[in-house]
Amino acid sequence: MIETIEKQTGAAFRLNKGDKLKVIDPQGEQVSDMVLFSAEDKREKLSSGKTLDFENTILITKGHHLWSNRSHKMMALLEDTNGRNDFLLAPCSPETFQIIYNNHEYHPSCFENLYTNLAEFSIEPDDIPTAFNIFMNVQFAPDGTLSVDPPLSKAGDYVLLEAKMDLIVGLTACSAEQSNNYSFKPIQYEIIPAER
Amino acid sequence: MIETIEKQTGAAFRLNKGDKLKVIDPQGEQVSDMVLFSAEDKREKLSSGKTLDFENTILITKGHHLWSNRSHKMMALLEDTNGRNDFLLAPCSPETFQIIYNNHEYHPSCFENLYTNLAEFSIEPDDIPTAFNIFMNVQFAPDGTLSVDPPLSKAGDYVLLEAKMDLIVGLTACSAEQSNNYSFKPIQYEIIPAER
Repeated sequence: MIETIEKQTGAAFRLNKGDKLKVIDPQGEQVSDMVLFSAEDKREKLSSGKTLDFENTILITKGHHLWSNRSHKMMALLEDTNGRNDFLLAPCSPETFQIIYNNHEYHPSCFENLYTNLAEFSIEPDDIPTAFNIFMNVQFAPDGTLSVDPPLSKAGDYVLLEAKMDLIVGLTACSAEQSNNYSFKPIQYEIIPAER
Repeated sequence: MIETIEKQTGAAFRLNKGDKLKVIDPQGEQVSDMVLFSAEDKREKLSSGKTLDFENTILITKGHHLWSNRSHKMMALLEDTNGRNDFLLAPCSPETFQIIYNNHEYHPSCFENLYTNLAEFSIEPDDIPTAFNIFMNVQFAPDGTLSVDPPLSKAGDYVLLEAKMDLIVGLTACSAEQSNNYSFKPIQYEIIPAER
């Protein structure tokens, strides 16, 4: 069954080892921030530093794994029809909008949508790591300069991931203007249970 | 007073707001992994994702700040005579040597040297974030591929940092062969107290 994460919101759920997760961009040009925690011990969680180190690349896509801070494989990326994701930048937060966008009004954020949805699993705001930002198009110049460009994803693009351990997953439909070309849209996901 | 971190070891200490920290490569071609925690609340700590986002670059050097997971400035980089540091890769750990180097014997690691030295401040292994890897020369290709090259630092190169909050600092003389051109060397540091 395909679930919809409405624009500027999030979801959290359990994924058992061997289950597959399909994250879909139904309209195109939208980003989904994903964080992972071991269901056994939530102090084990997704690590960008470990993933970039073990996979030896900034650009994580089909054929790579997402690794934990304890150097374990959390997910395998089985398919990636778009092929561009980001694992450099933290989830957008209230301070992102204050510091980068100079917006001091309330603004929904992936950070808030992650920790509010993950609260039922006893995960707190300080526990949220740098997210794997599916479909996010962060370009880097040879001098290191970053630019957040419109996603290259088209309607129907998806990534298919397989859980390599029992997981708690946090997932958003991104709230940041730059990340999705100034047009907030939903994200969809489907859990495909392992055959048991 | 200049302190020496012997090869393949580490240190941890408190730094008060306004204090400066000079991290020196006394012989050249050595790397020092640094992690930071707020002395007030150790759940606030160094964040690569926040730093790369707010500074808008992969390459953090003079003029930039190191940011926390709560979007606060932890340190300002006042000087950087070498100019090349890494903030992509996790500290080397026992698993680094198993997975990347295929070495299954005991091997000292920055991860062990960080958590053993930080234990006196009640910081546990799972608390260690991706480190700011001073003098580490990680090159990235346009396709995202990473390579860990010999440091460009020469004997006497240093970075000078200023604490923007009261901090607990973990610092190493890196234990990984690739990071320091297969020659383990010490790191030195000097704490320059703020004038009070």
